[in-house]
Amino acid sequence: MRATTIHAPGDIRLSDVPEPTLTAPTDAIVQVVAGCICGSDLWPYRGENDIDPGSTIGHECVGVISEVGSEVKRFREGDFVIVPFVHCDNTCAHCRHGAQSACLEQGWTESGQAEFSRVTHADGSLVKTDGMPDESLLPSLLALSDVMATGWHAAVSAGVREGGTAVVVGDGAVGLCGVIAARQLGAERVIAMSRHESRQAIARKFGATDIVAERGKEGGAIVKELTDGIGADAVLECVGTDEAMQTAFGLARPGSTVGFVGVPHGVELPVRRMFQKNVGLAGGVAPVRRYLPDLLELVTSGAIEPGLVFDRTLPLDEVAEGYRAMDERRSIKVLLTP
Amino acid sequence: MRATTIHAPGDIRLSDVPEPTLTAPTDAIVQVVAGCICGSDLWPYRGENDIDPGSTIGHECVGVISEVGSEVKRFREGDFVIVPFVHCDNTCAHCRHGAQSACLEQGWTESGQAEFSRVTHADGSLVKTDGMPDESLLPSLLALSDVMATGWHAAVSAGVREGGTAVVVGDGAVGLCGVIAARQLGAERVIAMSRHESRQAIARKFGATDIVAERGKEGGAIVKELTDGIGADAVLECVGTDEAMQTAFGLARPGSTVGFVGVPHGVELPVRRMFQKNVGLAGGVAPVRRYLPDLLELVTSGAIEPGLVFDRTLPLDEVAEGYRAMDERRSIKVLLTP
Repeated sequence: MRATTIHAPGDIRLSDVPEPTLTAPTDAIVQVVAGCICGSDLWPYRGENDIDPGSTIGHECVGVISEVGSEVKRFREGDFVIVPFVHCDNTCAHCRHGAQSACLEQGWTESGQAEFSRVTHADGSLVKTDGMPDESLLPSLLALSDVMATGWHAAVSAGVREGGTAVVVGDGAVGLCGVIAARQLGAERVIAMSRHESRQAIARKFGATDIVAERGKEGGAIVKELTDGIGADAVLECVGTDEAMQTAFGLARPGSTVGFVGVPHGVELPVRRMFQKNVGLAGGVAPVRRYLPDLLELVTSGAIEPGLVFDRTLPLDEVAEGYRAMDERRSIKVLLTP
Repeated sequence: MRATTIHAPGDIRLSDVPEPTLTAPTDAIVQVVAGCICGSDLWPYRGENDIDPGSTIGHECVGVISEVGSEVKRFREGDFVIVPFVHCDNTCAHCRHGAQSACLEQGWTESGQAEFSRVTHADGSLVKTDGMPDESLLPSLLALSDVMATGWHAAVSAGVREGGTAVVVGDGAVGLCGVIAARQLGAERVIAMSRHESRQAIARKFGATDIVAERGKEGGAIVKELTDGIGADAVLECVGTDEAMQTAFGLARPGSTVGFVGVPHGVELPVRRMFQKNVGLAGGVAPVRRYLPDLLELVTSGAIEPGLVFDRTLPLDEVAEGYRAMDERRSIKVLLTP
């Protein structure tokens, strides 16, 4: 099959690789209808993560089940499913505790930017739609496989509550979905930190009440002013760099929590400040499966439209251009059709 | 008045210093009935914090009000009060949010190991007893000025809930009070990590169901076994060293929180592990005033007896021996009578 592979920093190719097969009776194979490129795919693309040359890349997709293992009970060929980027049995002690991303049977989507993808523990991992969804819903359903659920996890972890003020650090697809989440969870004021006009526009569409274009200390000072010198009730850190994390802690009011979902790269947590100000940190790899049923309902009912984060659609053949566009920030998020 | 002063690492003296006076109409002066030595006083004593030579030391005390400023309305001469080590107006935005230790009018007890101590924002900071308490209650009331409230904060921050398993890292007075707190907040199983027999005995008295004497990885493996390989629902970090913090994160189940109250010294938070396992961190300087009314009720009703952490009482004149005894771990916590 055709699948995206990475060979070195900046070297993305569409290659011919063996089709995934069932490796356990609990597996399913999904024929990808839409996949996409994640901000976290840019870490290896930029040489900031180790690369196994020639390995497939891409962990987000939706599609139609083409084959199920003999022990898969809840799904069958032809079902349209959302594939969480972390697979889980949804029954182990960690899953029952809401930490599906740390499932004792944890698996990962390994070829989301490809024609087919294997899902381990399909019964636990997958969620299906009622019949084939309308094509217009595809982008939003695809967003549920990672970014929307990840933004939601940031907001939940930050403890966003009815009536408060939430700040979102990061205007990538996850940060923008964090704006949706903060609003849905009841934040009255959502301050999005974004320098890019196109992203600011989406943030506003998603419910941001204020936009702060400045970064670092300057941006922090403006947010402080917007919050009467007190700081925000909840801060969503949706980047993963040290700068973003320090900004987040600078904005959080004493007694609040920074919810973090950006894969940390070079982050040194300000433990003294956290101690002195009683600002906590929570979050991590999003337990997508936990939120998926509710998020699916929000998408199909039209309450949220996270698919708007996709500002470009490319055929899978042009995946390399998709990476370039996201790397150069010409595109927020690229949808790929096999 | 006679007050404890520190001059260099290991150099504690009882000195003659000016009595504290009212510096604002919202101040009160307290004649100390009992003070004590805190684990955190040992940081400068051991040369791990900067020292301002000749400055007073000691931030825990209870006593009788000897003077109040003209704007103090809720207290008067003769009231027996518990003095939280952080003072607050209990009305500012941070206080109303439950973060009294970050009060916009924050002050600190500066001479708890002395004859008199000044309390800023007395109306907000202090809590009084109904009349003069029985002498037998003094140690437990004194514990409320810091260690019991701090152990409580660890348990609250760690999210201890009905029925779960809590692990307490650290068998100092705060850790032991953390055991009390975890039980009061409903933990069914409380695992205390302690190597010292006398401390183990108190931990059991306070409600610990299991004692683990091993430290580091070995201790972690035992706790893991005790929790069916899953990890604890809540972990209280009551030391402040990097070793204790790493141990705490090693024991926390995915999706749980480490509650930390030990002043961090040389701590590097394992941000990658926190991310991958979804283990959060919360806590910091305890907002004593927030918990004080409830804790006072628990003490006066006899439900808890945190005063048992005091295993030695010395006259103030012998304060230097008190520091030595705690430094050498011959004593858990020393009560001082002026």
